[in-house]
Amino acid sequence: MKRLVILGSTGSIGTNTLDLVAKFPGEFRAVGLTAGNNLDLLEEQIRTFRPDAVALPDPQAAQRLRSRCQDVPVRVLAGTEGLREVAALPTADIVVSSIVGAAGLVPTLAAIQAGKPVALANKEPMVMAGQLMQAEARKHGVRIFPVDSEHSAIFQSMEGHRREDIRRVVLTASGGPLWNMTRDEMRHVKPQQALQHPNWKMGAKITIDSATLMNKGLEVVEARWLFDMPAGQIDVLVHRESIIHSLVEYRDGSVIAQLGLPDMRTPISYALMYPARLPIDPPQLDLAKFRQLTFFEPDHERFRCLPLAYHALKVGGTMPAALNAANEVAVAAYLQEHIGFLDIADVIERTMEAHDSRTIASLDDAVEADRWAREKAAAYVATRGRAA
Amino acid sequence: MKRLVILGSTGSIGTNTLDLVAKFPGEFRAVGLTAGNNLDLLEEQIRTFRPDAVALPDPQAAQRLRSRCQDVPVRVLAGTEGLREVAALPTADIVVSSIVGAAGLVPTLAAIQAGKPVALANKEPMVMAGQLMQAEARKHGVRIFPVDSEHSAIFQSMEGHRREDIRRVVLTASGGPLWNMTRDEMRHVKPQQALQHPNWKMGAKITIDSATLMNKGLEVVEARWLFDMPAGQIDVLVHRESIIHSLVEYRDGSVIAQLGLPDMRTPISYALMYPARLPIDPPQLDLAKFRQLTFFEPDHERFRCLPLAYHALKVGGTMPAALNAANEVAVAAYLQEHIGFLDIADVIERTMEAHDSRTIASLDDAVEADRWAREKAAAYVATRGRAA
Repeated sequence: MKRLVILGSTGSIGTNTLDLVAKFPGEFRAVGLTAGNNLDLLEEQIRTFRPDAVALPDPQAAQRLRSRCQDVPVRVLAGTEGLREVAALPTADIVVSSIVGAAGLVPTLAAIQAGKPVALANKEPMVMAGQLMQAEARKHGVRIFPVDSEHSAIFQSMEGHRREDIRRVVLTASGGPLWNMTRDEMRHVKPQQALQHPNWKMGAKITIDSATLMNKGLEVVEARWLFDMPAGQIDVLVHRESIIHSLVEYRDGSVIAQLGLPDMRTPISYALMYPARLPIDPPQLDLAKFRQLTFFEPDHERFRCLPLAYHALKVGGTMPAALNAANEVAVAAYLQEHIGFLDIADVIERTMEAHDSRTIASLDDAVEADRWAREKAAAYVATRGRAA
Repeated sequence: MKRLVILGSTGSIGTNTLDLVAKFPGEFRAVGLTAGNNLDLLEEQIRTFRPDAVALPDPQAAQRLRSRCQDVPVRVLAGTEGLREVAALPTADIVVSSIVGAAGLVPTLAAIQAGKPVALANKEPMVMAGQLMQAEARKHGVRIFPVDSEHSAIFQSMEGHRREDIRRVVLTASGGPLWNMTRDEMRHVKPQQALQHPNWKMGAKITIDSATLMNKGLEVVEARWLFDMPAGQIDVLVHRESIIHSLVEYRDGSVIAQLGLPDMRTPISYALMYPARLPIDPPQLDLAKFRQLTFFEPDHERFRCLPLAYHALKVGGTMPAALNAANEVAVAAYLQEHIGFLDIADVIERTMEAHDSRTIASLDDAVEADRWAREKAAAYVATRGRAA
């Protein structure tokens, strides 16, 4: 029986994780949950799964939840301190970190510092402060298990093989909904069109990241820290069908890959049960039904966010945090139709050009770079918005 | 430093293995070699690699080799006893078993009984007497490492994962040179056409087996014993490009696969160095260059050898040995143009129908079934030849 804390229980990863808890009651118990502002769903989850404690960032929302859940024996905590407390819950065996955006950083670090293994679904902790996170994980003897399907694929393709034999890893990218558009068509693409992901159902932010390939850029940064591997050993391959989730190439010419139909329960359960696998028994992967799997080089001209991410890694320090923050601001502005699709990369690039990268000695350095870059990016968005 | 015996050193696997010995002199030494009738190449190998002992099945050929190699300090042994002695050479650390056909059976068993780990490249020991081979391997505490690219792929895709989590294995098949032919076109196909394998350069017998899909049938039987897995868990998928060498599907929906460009040095070196990998450093696998990988269900109507192999496994006992022997006779007859391409399956099927399968209690039972089936198949070939 594994006792879980789920940071971000009302999101896509959170609900998939709770599906597993419901399906395998002998394997899991959810002891702690945190959510953002979906009070209705969180209340429903509390009533179904009976966690010991939950936390919300907003104290007023927490107060509302308390009065709605008076009949349930649950502690409702609030604010950053509340999130940290749930992340470090003494009864928890493992913490699922799936808060979208920079907000996941502090509670994830709290889980690591409390000695909890982490099933990491959000990219930001590794993107904003990967070196620090890994140093803390080593210090506290904590393993970080990837949940992102690509990183889980790499992790699974490394299991049983020697690290020193790896030549490179290859992250696959679907290419997103705009893969076949010209640059000129991309200039005018509306959010509703960019939100049509071909293979995965995800939140709006991550779907736009998929359309710009920034999602893959952030995954490259994440892989660099998760697997302690230089950027030069991390390649990206566009694979439209998203069946091969990623590959690891070894020095004898052998390539190990992990494949599957899109089902987040697979990487989530593997991260939670490693090295065991749960009998989820989804439909068999019938490659003959697909007839073909296709592959392309990523196009750095139309998808500038990808080379920007490699560049951020090369500069190092706080630059990936700045890249990530500028991207969050730009994507939000695009979703609100304040800027155009191609402006997203422009906003990020200009923010990075203005950013003076520093070493990350503590979480504050990453948080400060994040704050600075958001402000800068928002200023560029404002100019761009006026120009548009 | 691993000291190797290579059973079948002048064949395709044998020469690839010696390429590795030449490339990695610090890792390997060839202490024993055996060959069939390619005296010239064997002499060259003796002069290059300086083995302690070699063996040839034919005593007269051995005598000729002895006089040709008087200036080299090598023991030249002869006959089945000679092959067994080299297979069990006290100085050997591992034995590469790559004698094509039933002739590999006795020396491979001798290696196992001498406690030598075996890198198994020939299918016949597992096809003819898999249960017995595995029982002997267990008894002598010997590991059998697959060298066939498909079985090596399965082996590599199982490493680091739990056996009990496996749902099925999927052997990929290129479909061979005749995949796109109608049954009527196949009726008239000449050996020179059937010998044009799209992806691998191999010997004539195995290339025809690839054209009939019997190669895959024999691999299913081999997998059944190598991995101790019921036939119902072993599937076949036609994959024209032979890049994905095989796949293992787990019960959580995850599929692990091994991929690579065609290079037998990869599975050979993995079998020899397991779990380490040698820096062969072949060109990177560039999937974007392929653009697409294609997949099809195998066609049991046009390729009857595949269901015949499944049927032989289902009957069990000596039936797979009979299937294999009848196939060897039929393929030889086809290569000599005594029978047509479609007759190959007919000869095998008629031989199997006439065969009274028995339990294999000792190697003699398999050898006797092999002898019986060859005689029977030759008789059918004679009738068919007259009819043609």
